[in-house]
Amino acid sequence: MILIIDSKFLCDRRIDMSKKKVVVSLGHEALGYTILAQWDAVKVTARALADLVEEDYQLTITHSNGPQVSMIHKAMTELRRIYIDYTPAPMCVCSAMSQGYVGYDIQNALRSELLSRGISKPVSTILTQVTVDPYDDAFYEPTKVIGRHMSKEDADIEIKKGNYVKEDPGKGFRRVVAAPKPIDIVEIEAIRTLADADQVVIACGGGGIPVIEQQHVLKGASAVIEKDAIAGKLAADLKCDELIILTGVDCVYKDYGKESQAPLDSLTIAEARELMAQGQFEAGTMLPKIEAAVNYLEQVRDGKVLITSMTKVKDAVKGKAGTVITA
Amino acid sequence: MILIIDSKFLCDRRIDMSKKKVVVSLGHEALGYTILAQWDAVKVTARALADLVEEDYQLTITHSNGPQVSMIHKAMTELRRIYIDYTPAPMCVCSAMSQGYVGYDIQNALRSELLSRGISKPVSTILTQVTVDPYDDAFYEPTKVIGRHMSKEDADIEIKKGNYVKEDPGKGFRRVVAAPKPIDIVEIEAIRTLADADQVVIACGGGGIPVIEQQHVLKGASAVIEKDAIAGKLAADLKCDELIILTGVDCVYKDYGKESQAPLDSLTIAEARELMAQGQFEAGTMLPKIEAAVNYLEQVRDGKVLITSMTKVKDAVKGKAGTVITA
Repeated sequence: MILIIDSKFLCDRRIDMSKKKVVVSLGHEALGYTILAQWDAVKVTARALADLVEEDYQLTITHSNGPQVSMIHKAMTELRRIYIDYTPAPMCVCSAMSQGYVGYDIQNALRSELLSRGISKPVSTILTQVTVDPYDDAFYEPTKVIGRHMSKEDADIEIKKGNYVKEDPGKGFRRVVAAPKPIDIVEIEAIRTLADADQVVIACGGGGIPVIEQQHVLKGASAVIEKDAIAGKLAADLKCDELIILTGVDCVYKDYGKESQAPLDSLTIAEARELMAQGQFEAGTMLPKIEAAVNYLEQVRDGKVLITSMTKVKDAVKGKAGTVITA
Repeated sequence: MILIIDSKFLCDRRIDMSKKKVVVSLGHEALGYTILAQWDAVKVTARALADLVEEDYQLTITHSNGPQVSMIHKAMTELRRIYIDYTPAPMCVCSAMSQGYVGYDIQNALRSELLSRGISKPVSTILTQVTVDPYDDAFYEPTKVIGRHMSKEDADIEIKKGNYVKEDPGKGFRRVVAAPKPIDIVEIEAIRTLADADQVVIACGGGGIPVIEQQHVLKGASAVIEKDAIAGKLAADLKCDELIILTGVDCVYKDYGKESQAPLDSLTIAEARELMAQGQFEAGTMLPKIEAAVNYLEQVRDGKVLITSMTKVKDAVKGKAGTVITA
C-alpha cells in the first residue's frame, strides 16, 4: 500500500486547535507618553496580557502609537534643524521607528511576565505596513488629530507645507491627518505563520504604516490608520475566535456621560448598528471600536468581540465584566 | 491498523529541502548614511538580494546600523534638550528604533524588486535582541567606535557620564563602546519559524539589541554586537547551508593593501586560523568576518561561507568570484 500524505495538510495540524486565537488591541493607556513612563506602563499591560496567555489564548497584539510617533517626529525635526546634512524623516519612517520602539518594550515586558509565571513562549514584533486607497474619502477631509498643541506661527508653517491643522480653542493648534480605511496588511503571511505556530505576535503597531501601492512600490502615505480598524481587519484576516479591545472604560455604555448612563453587557450587530445610528458612540473613541467589531463579525460570523479595560479583562473573559458583541 | 503520526515530525516537512538556507550579512555600503541616501542604496541592495532569491536561496538578512542608530541617538538627545518633559532615550531604545527604520526600507525595496521580477514572497522584519555576558572581557576594554567626531568639550561631557571616548588625532573624539560576544538570540524561534516557512526574514539588525539577562528581565546593555559575529551565530543557530558576507571588497586578500596583495579564492578553517595568527586581517573590518566564518563552520561542518561584494555576489554564488571558506 502506498500512503500519500499531503504534507501541507498535515502541517496545518501544527495549529493547536484548543487555543483560542485572539487579536488584542491596546489603547494609549497601555503605553504612556515618555520613554520612562512607557517602561513602567508596559509592565502593567504585560500582566493583563499574561492573564490571557494563561487562559489559553494565542495572542496577536496591536497597539496605538500616537504619542510615540509624535515624539520621534519631533526628534527627527530637531535633528534636521541642527545638523543640516541629515535629510528629513517622513511620517512613514517615524512610524517604522515607533513600531520598533513600542514593540521592543511590549515584547520584553510580556516575556518577563510570562517567565515569572513559568511560561516560556516566543514573543516577537513584526514590522507592519497596511495599504490604503489614495482616493479614500478620508484624504479629502482629514480628521485624525496628531502631535501636541502648537502656536499660530507653527500652524502657519504646517499649512504652507501642505499639511492640515485644526484649532483647539484656547489651547492652540494641532495637526490633523487623514484616517483612511485599511485595505491589505502587507506582512499578513508572516503574522499568520507565527500566530499559527502559537507564538505571541506584536503587529500592526499604530494601525500599521499606511502605504499606497504604486505599481510594485509601496509609498508611505501622510495618514494614520485607526488602531481599532486595523485590529478588526487583522482579527478577520487571521479568522480569530475573538477580538479583545482594551480601552479606558470597563465596558460600552448607553447614554455615556449622561445621567441615564447604563452599561451594556452584550450587543448584537443589529443592536450595535441601531445605537450607532442614534449617535450613541463618540467619534474617535468608542465609535471606531464598535465599527471594528461589526466589520470583524461580518466576516467571522461565529466570532466574539470583547470591549473592556485592562483592569477588568481577566474577569471579562470569564463573562463577569465588559461588553460582548456577537453577530 | 492504527497509524500514529508524530505531527511535529511531519510538520518539519514544511521545510522545502530544495532551498538553500542562507544568512546574508549586509555592511554599511548596503544602506547609506541619511534617510534619502538609504532609500536609494536599498534599491541596489535589493537587486543583489533578489538575485539570490532567484538562485533558490531562502534568505535571512542581517545588517549593520551604525550610522542609523547614531542619527537616532542624536535626534533623541536634541529632543530632550528642547522638550525637557521627555525622558532620555537609552541606546537600546535607539537601537530598536533603528531596526524598525532599516527593516522598513530593506523589506520594501526587496518586496518591490521581487514583484518586478514576478516573484511574490513574504518579506518581514523581526525585532531582535541578543543576550551578552555582563562579565565579557569586552566591557573592560571598549573598542567599538560609534557616532561622529565630537569636540574636546563634548568628549569631556561623555566621560563625566561614564562613557568611553577615543581621540582620533586631528579629527576630534569619538565614543567607544564594548563589543561583547553574542550568547543567545532571544527571538530565534520566531526567526526560525519564518525561515522554515521559506519566507524572507530581516533580523538581528545592527547585530541585535544587546541585552543582559537579570532573572527574567532583559536589560539593554551599553554595547554593540559585531554584525558579522551575529551573522555567524544566526547561520549556525538556523543550521544554514551558507553564510554570505557582503562587504566593500570583492574577496579576501592576503597582504591586503601591500604590493604583494593577492586574492584568496578559497580557505579552510585551518588556513584561515593560520592567516589570523599572522595578523593578516584588520581588526574591525576583515578580522570579525573571518572569525564569524570559523565560528559558524565549527558548528555546521558541511556549511560554506562566501565573502564578496554586492556587485560580485551573483558571480560569486556560481563560483566565479569572492572567497569561499569551508571546514
